[in-house]
Amino acid sequence: MVNTVPNAATANTLPAADSRDRVSTFLKQLQDEICQGLEQLDDEGKFQEDSWQREEGGGGRSRVIKGGRIFEQGGVNFSEVWGKDLPPSILVQRPEAAGHGFYATGTSMVLHPRSPYIPTVHLNYRYFEAGPVWWFGGGIDLTPYYPFVEDVKHFHQTLKEACDRHHSEYYPTFKHWCDEYFYLKHRQETRGVGGIFFDYQDSRPRLYQGPHPQGAAAHHSEAIGDVPPRTWEEIFAFVQDCGRAFLPAYVPIAERRQATEWGDRERDFQLYRRGRYVEFNLVYDRGTIFGLQTNGRTESILMSLPPLVRWEYGYQPEAGTPEAQLYEVFLKPQDWLGGAVG
Amino acid sequence: MVNTVPNAATANTLPAADSRDRVSTFLKQLQDEICQGLEQLDDEGKFQEDSWQREEGGGGRSRVIKGGRIFEQGGVNFSEVWGKDLPPSILVQRPEAAGHGFYATGTSMVLHPRSPYIPTVHLNYRYFEAGPVWWFGGGIDLTPYYPFVEDVKHFHQTLKEACDRHHSEYYPTFKHWCDEYFYLKHRQETRGVGGIFFDYQDSRPRLYQGPHPQGAAAHHSEAIGDVPPRTWEEIFAFVQDCGRAFLPAYVPIAERRQATEWGDRERDFQLYRRGRYVEFNLVYDRGTIFGLQTNGRTESILMSLPPLVRWEYGYQPEAGTPEAQLYEVFLKPQDWLGGAVG
Repeated sequence: MVNTVPNAATANTLPAADSRDRVSTFLKQLQDEICQGLEQLDDEGKFQEDSWQREEGGGGRSRVIKGGRIFEQGGVNFSEVWGKDLPPSILVQRPEAAGHGFYATGTSMVLHPRSPYIPTVHLNYRYFEAGPVWWFGGGIDLTPYYPFVEDVKHFHQTLKEACDRHHSEYYPTFKHWCDEYFYLKHRQETRGVGGIFFDYQDSRPRLYQGPHPQGAAAHHSEAIGDVPPRTWEEIFAFVQDCGRAFLPAYVPIAERRQATEWGDRERDFQLYRRGRYVEFNLVYDRGTIFGLQTNGRTESILMSLPPLVRWEYGYQPEAGTPEAQLYEVFLKPQDWLGGAVG
Repeated sequence: MVNTVPNAATANTLPAADSRDRVSTFLKQLQDEICQGLEQLDDEGKFQEDSWQREEGGGGRSRVIKGGRIFEQGGVNFSEVWGKDLPPSILVQRPEAAGHGFYATGTSMVLHPRSPYIPTVHLNYRYFEAGPVWWFGGGIDLTPYYPFVEDVKHFHQTLKEACDRHHSEYYPTFKHWCDEYFYLKHRQETRGVGGIFFDYQDSRPRLYQGPHPQGAAAHHSEAIGDVPPRTWEEIFAFVQDCGRAFLPAYVPIAERRQATEWGDRERDFQLYRRGRYVEFNLVYDRGTIFGLQTNGRTESILMSLPPLVRWEYGYQPEAGTPEAQLYEVFLKPQDWLGGAVG
């Protein structure tokens, strides 16, 4: 017999009646706002849009900027798709969704600046519904080549403020999750200086899903994520705030570094480090794997890959150089805001 | 109760007593021969060797050529490793190996020429022992940018001759397997013009394992691979012949195309197409995944990645150009030798 009375402590509350519309409308607005803000920053490059339809249901709008003043290449994508079955990689995490159709909407973006002094940035927010379950996921993270502590602090501080408006556990939990998720196990490096990341956020009082199977070792063992049950509205409001933190978190960094001069050495190192971005996206990234597994639009999924990339066997930065400092200081999980993270 | 009398029709016969030594000695010789042959072809570039040890057991020698006359970058790797457990991805195929220690030795190489008129080439041969089971695997395949039918025919003809000396079913079966294995599902393209590929070859009378789970659709449904049981010696002799076919299959193509002039257009297209090589190796390649899963030496595993790569959103070759011809004619499974493949 199936117990049809959900356990109050673990049941997922209902989403808003017009949940799909509200989330997808917000994500499209966010795509618009961010594209506008980035065009203003770039001052030369313009986004070109492709609208596309997915045979199994849904579609999206992919926007690409190329050869700009600031941005060498970047993509800002929105999609809304539905279908019969979620892929096995997701059903393992949400077995209640098995046998139900699914709805998924999201916006994701990666911007590759021309200057090695301006970091690459990534954002993705997504929302799923499948039978009895729904959840939000996503995050934002920064990948500098020649980093500055003040930039990293500014980025994290802006995200922390957005998180703190909703719950004091959000920033430390999701900052930690980000370090763990954007981790290249085969390189023993974080992808960059992190940011925030979360997945499977629903009304149940658990923030943290545990380490990604291919991700970092479980180097964080305290109980984190002790929050009361939250409503759909509360989580959606939090995700909106995170999305709107993108421009204030990133634009001031790009503005501060745009005039710094660079030459072949910095360019070579940037192209080499972009290889790590490719390795992460193709080997570990959940969004990329979901897209490829669900016959997503390949050009839109792989629009996150950099325009030009270099691999070099056995490269090691010389001791005492800025390149070595990137590895030694920045590509390890750090408590950037001091005392806020355990 | 466990049946300890193996079924004669399905049992794997024993390997030679000094099997590990013989295979690893052969693979090291093959590495030597091929490096010598390629240095002679290049006439400027020299391989640099790194020897390395693996903490869990074993080690290898990685050789890299950089900035040569013919080769922009390439790696020829030998390794011999052992450990407690094979990774799950292999145990699914060989459940008899579960709970046993394993031994694996292999040589693998990828060469990225400077000229877009000379194809990239890949070879890998490997041998496993784990408890009651052993098997050989590997293959060789060619990835041209501006292909010529006569080159493709020469490559396949040379491999077919090596195969035919052992069994008439080998070439058609392993040629088909190669088309299926080196297939980018998310692009609906073969990686190049194929060659031969096989895996899990032991003495049991079955040549063909079925399509790779992430690979091409099962577009080949006939019963193939009808061979009598083979001994360890017979399969090892076949693998040796395949390995020795590398230089005669590849070098004449590089020699024939080395003088062809090229400019920015050909270079841009080559860099763009190299992106597919990266996508294949990081998303699908069994050897890469095995290496990363078993804490292999990352620099040696990823030495197959090209020195410089380009991604471009929404690229489409113009109709009627040589670039379009690559897609239309060469990146689809083809019966290159006419009538030999079903």
